[in-house]
Amino acid sequence: MSEIQPSVSYSFTMRLYIENKPGMLVKVLNAIAEQKADPGAVDVVKVEGRYKVRDLTVSARDEKHSKDIVKAVKKIEGVKVRNVSDRVFLLHLGGKIRIENKVPVNTRDALSMAYTPGVGRVCESIARDKEKAHTLTIKQNSVAVVSDGSAVLGLGNIGPEAAMPVMEGKAMLFKEFADVDAYPICLDTQNVDDIVNAVKWMAPGFGGINLEDISAPRCFEIERRLKDLLDIPVFHDDQHGTAVVTLAATINALKVTGKELSELRIVIVGAGAAGVAITRILLEAGAKEVLCCDRSGIINRDNLSEADDSKRWIAQNTNPDNSSGSLMDATSGADLLIGVSGPGIVPREAIEKMAEDPIVFALANPVPEIMPEEINDIARIIATGRSDYPNQINNVLAFPGLFRGALDARAKDINEEMKLAAAHSIAECIDENDLGEEYIVPSVFNKQVVRRVAKAVKEAAYESGAAKRKKEIQ
Amino acid sequence: MSEIQPSVSYSFTMRLYIENKPGMLVKVLNAIAEQKADPGAVDVVKVEGRYKVRDLTVSARDEKHSKDIVKAVKKIEGVKVRNVSDRVFLLHLGGKIRIENKVPVNTRDALSMAYTPGVGRVCESIARDKEKAHTLTIKQNSVAVVSDGSAVLGLGNIGPEAAMPVMEGKAMLFKEFADVDAYPICLDTQNVDDIVNAVKWMAPGFGGINLEDISAPRCFEIERRLKDLLDIPVFHDDQHGTAVVTLAATINALKVTGKELSELRIVIVGAGAAGVAITRILLEAGAKEVLCCDRSGIINRDNLSEADDSKRWIAQNTNPDNSSGSLMDATSGADLLIGVSGPGIVPREAIEKMAEDPIVFALANPVPEIMPEEINDIARIIATGRSDYPNQINNVLAFPGLFRGALDARAKDINEEMKLAAAHSIAECIDENDLGEEYIVPSVFNKQVVRRVAKAVKEAAYESGAAKRKKEIQ
Repeated sequence: MSEIQPSVSYSFTMRLYIENKPGMLVKVLNAIAEQKADPGAVDVVKVEGRYKVRDLTVSARDEKHSKDIVKAVKKIEGVKVRNVSDRVFLLHLGGKIRIENKVPVNTRDALSMAYTPGVGRVCESIARDKEKAHTLTIKQNSVAVVSDGSAVLGLGNIGPEAAMPVMEGKAMLFKEFADVDAYPICLDTQNVDDIVNAVKWMAPGFGGINLEDISAPRCFEIERRLKDLLDIPVFHDDQHGTAVVTLAATINALKVTGKELSELRIVIVGAGAAGVAITRILLEAGAKEVLCCDRSGIINRDNLSEADDSKRWIAQNTNPDNSSGSLMDATSGADLLIGVSGPGIVPREAIEKMAEDPIVFALANPVPEIMPEEINDIARIIATGRSDYPNQINNVLAFPGLFRGALDARAKDINEEMKLAAAHSIAECIDENDLGEEYIVPSVFNKQVVRRVAKAVKEAAYESGAAKRKKEIQ
Repeated sequence: MSEIQPSVSYSFTMRLYIENKPGMLVKVLNAIAEQKADPGAVDVVKVEGRYKVRDLTVSARDEKHSKDIVKAVKKIEGVKVRNVSDRVFLLHLGGKIRIENKVPVNTRDALSMAYTPGVGRVCESIARDKEKAHTLTIKQNSVAVVSDGSAVLGLGNIGPEAAMPVMEGKAMLFKEFADVDAYPICLDTQNVDDIVNAVKWMAPGFGGINLEDISAPRCFEIERRLKDLLDIPVFHDDQHGTAVVTLAATINALKVTGKELSELRIVIVGAGAAGVAITRILLEAGAKEVLCCDRSGIINRDNLSEADDSKRWIAQNTNPDNSSGSLMDATSGADLLIGVSGPGIVPREAIEKMAEDPIVFALANPVPEIMPEEINDIARIIATGRSDYPNQINNVLAFPGLFRGALDARAKDINEEMKLAAAHSIAECIDENDLGEEYIVPSVFNKQVVRRVAKAVKEAAYESGAAKRKKEIQ
């Protein structure tokens, strides 16, 4: 496994009092270099007596590494470390988003129009026709990012308060990438009925619900029931966001290898929320032979007595030959392996048994099912969830444009047609001439992506009948 | 009753095609003047053929008046009305608030710090100590403005969608006056248990809950139960906001008349949410003789068999002599009358029977219990809820500073001490030398008010033990 590189996610700023002698700063930088850390900006704050006061920013690999660096600097004679501030924590102080008024309310006239008495007429108008809430309130552009904190990133069940920074971050991405006004709501309950009720009750002011980091299998039932109850899109991003981007990557990988989806043997490793959703979207897109593996091997239609609904669905919709066996049996002759399980789950031997031009998506994060460097020589195309390898499968390619398109069409749902349209438009963001083994997924900072996804999703919403907004005459 | 004046709450803009001849615009303005409307800005948009195209903004009294004005202008030969746009509705298009990111997330480094992987360490830190959510998330500055749409303004039970414009407006006031990030949540249920659960479940990400426009007596139970369940402030503004400002006005009215609160005979007309809260705060501030009247007259300790909890509380805590009778009996010899009931409920004769220097707060909105001009000759001090008379009792004087102070102290509650502190600091915003019959309440645009209220409330939070934040050493 390759060594993790220093990153800004573990960067900190030290305030150093450095004796005013030649060569002192070099000693500090050398100490940092010996720790294999990345020094960044070095700012002079002031000169105080015989000391130069400097703020030095350093990127580390992890928390222990940070501490080692500080320790090493402290050892240098003539240098004092006065303060260490963690840049990530500094960024989070007081939260990452804020509310802004679209117009100021600092005059009597503004107050009378935005609040009482003027607002009363707007309320009456919505009371006569509820649909008007879509044009006269923030409902038109707002999404609730809802979590119960039960499956947050790789951290597990850390509860609603601790999930807040992720949901706030998600709200930031909605804003930055698609100008959607998203608000984080972390629920202090992990009971399925309670979560369904909470979201149902708070829904009137929102134009969409983005479910996030809710553990399987609870997430399936919560999403299904809310989709039935509400007339706004309900979308569990951990399932469908990942599925959409994975399908986009698959489409482009097939262009590179010249294979056809309908003839592909596909192995999915991991039958959680993402695994089920990926299976579903691949079948809808035309895949015929999908095998899903969990800890006990290939899921088939024998021994389903203790299976939950989602595993039963997998058994009934995949594995046409009802084969059984281990992961190694599954990958034998497979064209595409998609890992959505855990670190290091897939051995090199499993890839060796794949068909010609193996395509491997190892999406466990931060440590993939198998590290790219272990199979660079045998896999034709490799994608991961990481930003430091080529072909990053990142949900941010999908959800902003999906919700943008759904809100623009005032869609009552994000349906299968809309998801397929999103996947195809992500794939099409890379010109066929530019496609290659190391470029099947567009960059998350490619500004074309959201625009194209939103447009395609909006059109699909109209074509599939999900759109409630009257289409403007062009 | 005085005629309602044209206002921006009923203002609209007409696009007029006016023939290019001398004297045409004067004809239009004359037509508007004949309708007793207020013309505002007249902008030339362009000249098209033999027409000057102008946008003319007009303030009307109400919707019918608007239509009459347009009709009158349409009658003028050589003038065509092409478009009429309602300024209040234009302001509401797409909602009145938006989310803003505190830092951009348009680079890989920013993404790694605000979202994965950097955010993970922040989550872990909160998972170890939930209280850290107060510093590392928007909880530190966020308030949920929660309504079920059951008692919105004077409009009644119009439901959650139609309540949204008011709650958004409230969020704007929080931002404009106190830099609090408030988000409107309108609930699709009017069941007490459901509302309590919904708010309890969504609470982890919020630093406070502002309940709004929930009908009595449900609002009492909802607030009481949520105050018990949550460790953040829960505040029903219709009750306590009004009560705090009313007490502030009372304090200053007593300074003007030279009377003492403990010797005052006070009559409250209306035993709803505001009436109960005003009664409570007046008693806490030192009032001894309060009589509450509802439709059946003075509330006393006889015939309580069908009374709800709040009426029972009133009976047991007011009316020391257990007197009975009509509103006229109650006002006989009274020093202060506070109306929180409905339009025109109080006759002039009731005021005539009051003691010397009668103080009358007629707070029903938009039409008070008695119009000021009907009693100008006999009442010494008059206050209303309206902005077009002196002494407007407006909640916006209280809730922004109250929540600002509570959030700054990380208060687990907004308790009685904090409310009393708020009332006194509002009253003190008017210098004693400036006080007078027509100036007992500071202007809502007096920037001192929020600052002073927040400071006083924060101090009261520390003194009363409600503050959870460690006090900074000065």
